Amino acid sequence: MMKIKRINHIAIVVDDFESALTFWRDALGLEIQKVEEVPEQQVSIAFIPLGETEIELVKPTANDSGIYKYLQKHGPGMHHICLEVEDIEAVLASLRAKHIRLVDEEPLISKGGMKYAFIHPKSTHGVLVELYEQPTI
Amino acid sequence: MMKIKRINHIAIVVDDFESALTFWRDALGLEIQKVEEVPEQQVSIAFIPLGETEIELVKPTANDSGIYKYLQKHGPGMHHICLEVEDIEAVLASLRAKHIRLVDEEPLISKGGMKYAFIHPKSTHGVLVELYEQPTI
Repeated sequence: MMKIKRINHIAIVVDDFESALTFWRDALGLEIQKVEEVPEQQVSIAFIPLGETEIELVKPTANDSGIYKYLQKHGPGMHHICLEVEDIEAVLASLRAKHIRLVDEEPLISKGGMKYAFIHPKSTHGVLVELYEQPTI
Repeated sequence: MMKIKRINHIAIVVDDFESALTFWRDALGLEIQKVEEVPEQQVSIAFIPLGETEIELVKPTANDSGIYKYLQKHGPGMHHICLEVEDIEAVLASLRAKHIRLVDEEPLISKGGMKYAFIHPKSTHGVLVELYEQPTI
């Protein structure tokens, strides 16, 4: 039985942190935990914890990245939902068996050791969904 | 000090529950808590609890509703984020004082007695944000 634990984060694409933070930080009073460069994804991310989940503001750092092209086409807004799972390999295997189209057939591994993979919106009825497994300590 | 408690739900617009549930229910194994008609918003909603938040699949029930037009224009996908707050009137007053543009100047009240109001995406850098206050028992 697959275990989907929680929404790990909602990713929002922005072209400019300061404009977006005018709302999330200045108007709502939420706190930014950190801002981090993620070179392998060609983005910079501002993390805003909210209860057991997070708002992540994602800003492209390269003009040829997928996220930059998304921003050019759609403008700033919600980009994907990330679901935290217990065993990402098992979840991916189960999704494959159900003919769900995956962007990443195998989990990618971030420099922090977390495993993640994206599911194709064609198989989710229009939503880009990321799966994420917390690194074991 | 405003209190934003948690993400109450992520709303996803769908044109057809069964196609969307092929992913959320059948592939991921998540449970639908209930499906409810909300005539005042001209939608039907499938509620899928996930940790302390919820995925809400929102299907228009009238061809002249805002959500139907949104679906026609953008296709199925993420529609808005709903933040649960402690005192919605105080939050709206604070947002007004900071010149944040509101869709609803005063909270709307659902038939279940919950108060909610939408913030205009022009003031959030592209995201439709709903505020929600749990009814007091």
